[in-house]
Amino acid sequence: MTSIGIVGAGVAGLHLGLHLRQQDLDVTIYTNRTAEQVADGRIMNSVAHMSATIDIEHELGIGEWPGTDAEYSYHYHYNGWGDDRRFKGVFEKPARIIDYRIYLPRLMAEFEARGGRLEIRDLSVAEIEALTEQHDLVVVSTGKGEIGALFPRREGKSPYTSPQRKLAVGFWKGVAERDPRGVEISVAPPAGELLVLPMWSFSGKVNALLFESVPGGPQEVLTDRRYEEDPEAYRALTLEMLKEFHPTVYERIDESAFELQNGAKDILQGAVTPVLREDYVLLPNGRYLLALGDVHMTVDPVQAQGANSATYSAKVVADVIREDHVFDERFMRKVARRRAERLEASTDWVNIIIQNPPAEQIPLLFTEMVHNQELANRFTENFNYPIRQIDLLGSPERVAAAIAATTGE
Amino acid sequence: MTSIGIVGAGVAGLHLGLHLRQQDLDVTIYTNRTAEQVADGRIMNSVAHMSATIDIEHELGIGEWPGTDAEYSYHYHYNGWGDDRRFKGVFEKPARIIDYRIYLPRLMAEFEARGGRLEIRDLSVAEIEALTEQHDLVVVSTGKGEIGALFPRREGKSPYTSPQRKLAVGFWKGVAERDPRGVEISVAPPAGELLVLPMWSFSGKVNALLFESVPGGPQEVLTDRRYEEDPEAYRALTLEMLKEFHPTVYERIDESAFELQNGAKDILQGAVTPVLREDYVLLPNGRYLLALGDVHMTVDPVQAQGANSATYSAKVVADVIREDHVFDERFMRKVARRRAERLEASTDWVNIIIQNPPAEQIPLLFTEMVHNQELANRFTENFNYPIRQIDLLGSPERVAAAIAATTGE
Repeated sequence: MTSIGIVGAGVAGLHLGLHLRQQDLDVTIYTNRTAEQVADGRIMNSVAHMSATIDIEHELGIGEWPGTDAEYSYHYHYNGWGDDRRFKGVFEKPARIIDYRIYLPRLMAEFEARGGRLEIRDLSVAEIEALTEQHDLVVVSTGKGEIGALFPRREGKSPYTSPQRKLAVGFWKGVAERDPRGVEISVAPPAGELLVLPMWSFSGKVNALLFESVPGGPQEVLTDRRYEEDPEAYRALTLEMLKEFHPTVYERIDESAFELQNGAKDILQGAVTPVLREDYVLLPNGRYLLALGDVHMTVDPVQAQGANSATYSAKVVADVIREDHVFDERFMRKVARRRAERLEASTDWVNIIIQNPPAEQIPLLFTEMVHNQELANRFTENFNYPIRQIDLLGSPERVAAAIAATTGE
Repeated sequence: MTSIGIVGAGVAGLHLGLHLRQQDLDVTIYTNRTAEQVADGRIMNSVAHMSATIDIEHELGIGEWPGTDAEYSYHYHYNGWGDDRRFKGVFEKPARIIDYRIYLPRLMAEFEARGGRLEIRDLSVAEIEALTEQHDLVVVSTGKGEIGALFPRREGKSPYTSPQRKLAVGFWKGVAERDPRGVEISVAPPAGELLVLPMWSFSGKVNALLFESVPGGPQEVLTDRRYEEDPEAYRALTLEMLKEFHPTVYERIDESAFELQNGAKDILQGAVTPVLREDYVLLPNGRYLLALGDVHMTVDPVQAQGANSATYSAKVVADVIREDHVFDERFMRKVARRRAERLEASTDWVNIIIQNPPAEQIPLLFTEMVHNQELANRFTENFNYPIRQIDLLGSPERVAAAIAATTGE
């Protein structure tokens, strides 16, 4: 039987594992944390699964999440400029956000219950290379540093050499929900953005506050100041930033209830350098490693494209495996080519959004959407469809054409 | 309203025109022949439409051909070597062949009946370039010589600089049908191949005999000898070649009835140099021309991939137009990328088949199929699916893997 090894038990690796068990293949996922350790650990992200991803979850039999209440259909926007600053866009089908400390352990359990093998161990680069002798195909879906560096940067699609935003996300109580429920996107140049994400976690409904701070700007202190050093000061600083830059969020805070759901584990600070890496690498032993998920493409989280791209990519890999069990360069090139259009669209879109100073068409588009409901809805729905999104906003001419087409001008 | 100009009223241009009328766009097709002239003219090809193409025809409302009897589900093979030489493969859904002198005029009439504009005129390169000022997008779907040369050859995907087969096709009466009906593929190295194609033409059921002759080999005389110079001698020569190289076809000939359906108009002699050209070209005025059909990709007819690729390509172009009316380089690159995998698979497959001397895996595969029904059926069905076909036969290792997988060895 064809044997596949997957390095990494994040959303990409687990989705791929579940797809391949549907094909009755022999699948082993290698990870360095047990499901219990994941559930007990620090938050990993606050990523929304768009309906296009939820459709894939239904195909995999992991589409139902009984007992959770995590769906929403709106994006509320606030532009930090102009007279009219507020608008909202609506999704055709709801998105949802579930704490990955709940999501991933369930997928790990499902994978094992369906006959997948989970091996808990750390793997060095040499050990990963050795796995290619044990399995017909090895897919690497995790790994920074040395492991990530196996896959060369695609310079033409990796415009940045440093993070364009500093990140700080926490799961907070005491933030009133929007009615109807939705994500809020508050854009406050030159400080950066704030995303308020209604989600389901251990205590039920909480809100993730994801601060996307321009380096050197007034908001980056939320990433630089360590929460653990003085939790109360960090909380006060957070309120101060909300009040100064994000008034439509601040007005929803009940200060008496404003606290992290579960203390220090509920906050994550850091930054990512966006990069798109080569899809595969040929090893000295003549075998290939295939890249999937973050190790292949790292995007800033501001447009929720990391997990949604990774699950798409896992499905493409599974589709190509279904067609073809000859893991030669042709196989690798098929995977690369088939996922390229959508993944490049995601990374281009996010990289335009985070550009400093802003790409000229972005403030134009955001200003227009305040009074152009059709465009606001399209921009929102396109979180499912990165190709359409880059069609919409890939150049000043394209934004102008979209405005002209929707206004008849 | 978005206005599209299409140069050429072959299958590619007409399919695209019909797709775009379904989108209610303003479409003009430019061609140098009226429907009557096409119907009255020389045969153009003998191409089979695979079921994947017929599915597209149904989408376009041109899937029904009342009064014709042109469908078949079998490929009968004869290898000119070995002890066991015969095998057959079966399609999941039937293919069909209709004389393009019937097919194209009906599509031209449908296009006009649905509001498309047909302009009968010759166009120079300068006039085609000028059309880009009149239309939002101009697609070039026909044109040899100067017009074709607008689109540079893709050297990496165009391995030949001269024809690998000389071609001679005639529509003959007096060839008994196979029961159940099917195409016969007689492979006789080093002479070349013969395809016997049951089809529908003006007189009803006829058979196209398509001789694919290796240049310098004993069969090329059927291309070099001009039919018009001595029809009776040409007929005798055809019988001689059948008897010598293609015994399973010769045994089906009723010599007393063996004649062209309609004289000299029913024979076509020539040769094509396979080429894959760039998808688009930027003109000095800043506008683009998009290539479609033969002008984009020319393949030897031996595997019936010309028209089936062209109709696929037309559908891709129509799909991208449905998504996006901004005809910038991004648009052109989207078209290029989206059709590349399948078109490159077609062209690679056909170019492997016609290689001289034969690529090592091809006689191996054909010998194996004599007693491997699963592979014979797969090879046959894959006439619909070029990507799967090149997966099957793209390298000696891939043929070996397919044999091993089907025989359990």
